[in-house]
Amino acid sequence: MREAKTFIGVIGAGACSDEAGRLSEEVGRNIARVGAVLVCGGMGGVMEAACRGAKKHGGLTIGILPGTNKAEANPYVDFPVVTGLGEGRNLLVVRNSDAVIALPGEFGTLSEIAFCLKLGKPVVGLSTWEVSDQMMRAGNAEEAVSMALVQARASRTES
Amino acid sequence: MREAKTFIGVIGAGACSDEAGRLSEEVGRNIARVGAVLVCGGMGGVMEAACRGAKKHGGLTIGILPGTNKAEANPYVDFPVVTGLGEGRNLLVVRNSDAVIALPGEFGTLSEIAFCLKLGKPVVGLSTWEVSDQMMRAGNAEEAVSMALVQARASRTES
Amino acid sequence: MREAKTFIGVIGAGACSDEAGRLSEEVGRNIARVGAVLVCGGMGGVMEAACRGAKKHGGLTIGILPGTNKAEANPYVDFPVVTGLGEGRNLLVVRNSDAVIALPGEFGTLSEIAFCLKLGKPVVGLSTWEVSDQMMRAGNAEEAVSMALVQARASRTES
Amino acid sequence: MREAKTFIGVIGAGACSDEAGRLSEEVGRNIARVGAVLVCGGMGGVMEAACRGAKKHGGLTIGILPGTNKAEANPYVDFPVVTGLGEGRNLLVVRNSDAVIALPGEFGTLSEIAFCLKLGKPVVGLSTWEVSDQMMRAGNAEEAVSMALVQARASRTES
Repeated sequence: MREAKTFIGVIGAGACSDEAGRLSEEVGRNIARVGAVLVCGGMGGVMEAACRGAKKHGGLTIGILPGTNKAEANPYVDFPVVTGLGEGRNLLVVRNSDAVIALPGEFGTLSEIAFCLKLGKPVVGLSTWEVSDQMMRAGNAEEAVSMALVQARASRTES
Repeated sequence: MREAKTFIGVIGAGACSDEAGRLSEEVGRNIARVGAVLVCGGMGGVMEAACRGAKKHGGLTIGILPGTNKAEANPYVDFPVVTGLGEGRNLLVVRNSDAVIALPGEFGTLSEIAFCLKLGKPVVGLSTWEVSDQMMRAGNAEEAVSMALVQARASRTES
Repeated sequence: MREAKTFIGVIGAGACSDEAGRLSEEVGRNIARVGAVLVCGGMGGVMEAACRGAKKHGGLTIGILPGTNKAEANPYVDFPVVTGLGEGRNLLVVRNSDAVIALPGEFGTLSEIAFCLKLGKPVVGLSTWEVSDQMMRAGNAEEAVSMALVQARASRTES
Repeated sequence: MREAKTFIGVIGAGACSDEAGRLSEEVGRNIARVGAVLVCGGMGGVMEAACRGAKKHGGLTIGILPGTNKAEANPYVDFPVVTGLGEGRNLLVVRNSDAVIALPGEFGTLSEIAFCLKLGKPVVGLSTWEVSDQMMRAGNAEEAVSMALVQARASRTES
């Protein structure tokens, strides 16, 4: 029987600054440290940095891709899931997460934050869009992961 | 051969105030007046009011529904399109519009605005989320439709 | 208030022989004659011939496309609906039909027949795959449309 | 960097006879034995039996679910992936497999076989639908897995 793993989503830009990359890697590292599975959109930028952080610390990563080619996943994704849904895969990233950490991102990230809020999925913001009081706000990577973990366990409605 | 119709999307809350309803109906009326087809998510609130406005003035309306039952469409939808995609249908509303008018709405509306901005689809805001300078802002219903129409014709990339 | 239109789906190959084209056009003509709306995948071959038949007789046609560009629809589609779902749009063609007529086709057509049977959607075969006794079989275009119409009205579960 | 795993899909009925269950479990066992990852629709019947077979022999299993609730996955799925696409998830099962083994099934299985054939994805049949010479046919579970493995490696176009 499978144990009930906790899935923490990481959303953010497909290309990012060095600083955002360091922050994302630190988030990934902490997700691995607490034993959660990292779920993301599988591509570059924030997603790749977070996956790299998780893999450096023995974590497990799932990338839900917009296209149909697993090779498009960044090299730190353990399990690429292809969808062929284009941007529609953003909703699947949210649905597959027990809680989500939003990092610096643009409009794709905004769509994912909106879906979290729409579906009542806990979302913790770290240097990202601030569009609602229903988003929690974290001061650093470690705090973001702690907050996401607590929320994920409290509201595991979809796993 | 079909003529190239212009499709203007209307996005907004599934339940809305009387005031937002009047504004939405006025938007629908103007979409009909300029001869464009109204595309929306097919449900109540802003969507229903806009469709009602369009139908009162002889317009044509398409509703792209989250579920699989056409009967869920509001009564002013001429062509209900069922999807079974849940919130994933939001992306289809955007994709099927040449330009979008965003009215008062919540997180579902925000996800649609985000998809417009992500895909480079023109989006005109009227009493709604203000999340980017790339959104145009209109002062009233007539102006919103004029702006959407101009933008739709300029950038008809997906029709 | 919208009247309850009947939507008849037409499925078949994206490229077809002259004979299959004539049969498809005849099916389209009959769908228009009985006042139903023709739903299809919007592309060439059987789909285009059926739409052409419907348009020659004043019918109405909806094409649910795999891509995101309305211009990919054949010229006899009145309302192109883009999806960006690729082959996943096959399921939407089925879901949007009250009954389906299956014409000569290959594996895409087979996937649609399978979805009809899975979802309990009436499907009438005409010179096509024969995979189940639950498919009805028609001898000619007029009979196929009559059978589909009767079934559509009997089982309108999704409209 | 992730190693290039081979993903073998298993498709078949959501409820099945004891005999089909034994066959499916044997297929799962062999997928684990050759070191491939088992991909399926995550539900009961053939899918559950195959996952059970894989887990008994230390394999890894992914279940791509129609709904949005991970708890709907059978207990032998290591990684449930929720989609909210309903039957539309059938296409994702196919897309995520390098080759597919079709076991006894009904119309859902037929839709997946059709998608394999449409997309040129290798599909090996074992006591299932026979709809095309492009399907390979295996005599037993071990042979089915061998054939799928060879084909998966030869045609890994989507991973």
